[in-house]
Amino acid sequence: MKMLFHYNWKVREEWYAWCEGVSEEELLKKRTGGVGSILETLFHNIDVEWSWIRVLKGEDDFKEDFEGYRSLEKVRELDARFKPEVEEFVANWDSSMEDRVLVSTGKDGTEYTDPWGEVMRHIIAHEIHHIGQLSVWSRELDREPVSADLLGRGLSDNQ
Amino acid sequence: MKMLFHYNWKVREEWYAWCEGVSEEELLKKRTGGVGSILETLFHNIDVEWSWIRVLKGEDDFKEDFEGYRSLEKVRELDARFKPEVEEFVANWDSSMEDRVLVSTGKDGTEYTDPWGEVMRHIIAHEIHHIGQLSVWSRELDREPVSADLLGRGLSDNQ
Repeated sequence: MKMLFHYNWKVREEWYAWCEGVSEEELLKKRTGGVGSILETLFHNIDVEWSWIRVLKGEDDFKEDFEGYRSLEKVRELDARFKPEVEEFVANWDSSMEDRVLVSTGKDGTEYTDPWGEVMRHIIAHEIHHIGQLSVWSRELDREPVSADLLGRGLSDNQ
Repeated sequence: MKMLFHYNWKVREEWYAWCEGVSEEELLKKRTGGVGSILETLFHNIDVEWSWIRVLKGEDDFKEDFEGYRSLEKVRELDARFKPEVEEFVANWDSSMEDRVLVSTGKDGTEYTDPWGEVMRHIIAHEIHHIGQLSVWSRELDREPVSADLLGRGLSDNQ
């Protein structure tokens, strides 16, 4: 499971590099599907990953919206701010944590019980899904998207 | 890791159901990004998943192209044909298989060595990525895409 976090982080860094070749206007442009723009998608992935980890730890999650982060530089800064805590949590993950249960209450009062192992895989799938959306928008811009291949990235040290 | 295979299979079934409400013309229409059409994306995910598993088993993989499978019914039939073998392989997966090495040769003669654990996660990420592309095309059709949420699907029995 750890390997897929490392995969997401590598792919995310490559998308930042990809963004360097695209105007800020295009990065912020409202697009069809997902959360709406390329940069907001990257922001959203950082937000969701960190927030779930914080929730598992019983700490406050991220409450800010994208308005304060409308540049590649600010999104990268946010990532650099949150990443160490996520990395530490993932590095210390072990199978005994799989079945711990997160109890949470939805806005309508519904109570949810989610095994931590599901939450971790939810974070993984969430990011890969949104990156798939970026790949379509990249082709709409006539640009080659970042490769989604997991093989060949030397990830096997992180299982 | 098994959980993410089960997640992909559930989401895939929901996309088949989603396809029932869309005309064959729209399902086959060439779109921007990915492999080009909604139905070919579903076909491609089935093909890639089964083929990698076959390669790990040292058996022949899938050589047919999409031309013979240009309907929802045919894609579902292909899935039903391949799925049992994939399910069995995934069910019998254990951590001792992580570091087995697959040696393969590319078209240009390059030799690749990939740990089996990476191959399995490559299959997972590959499908989620392509499903993210479907979600954009769904919005272009003014349709709600299938949820990508992993939580709430009762997957925790499959770790």
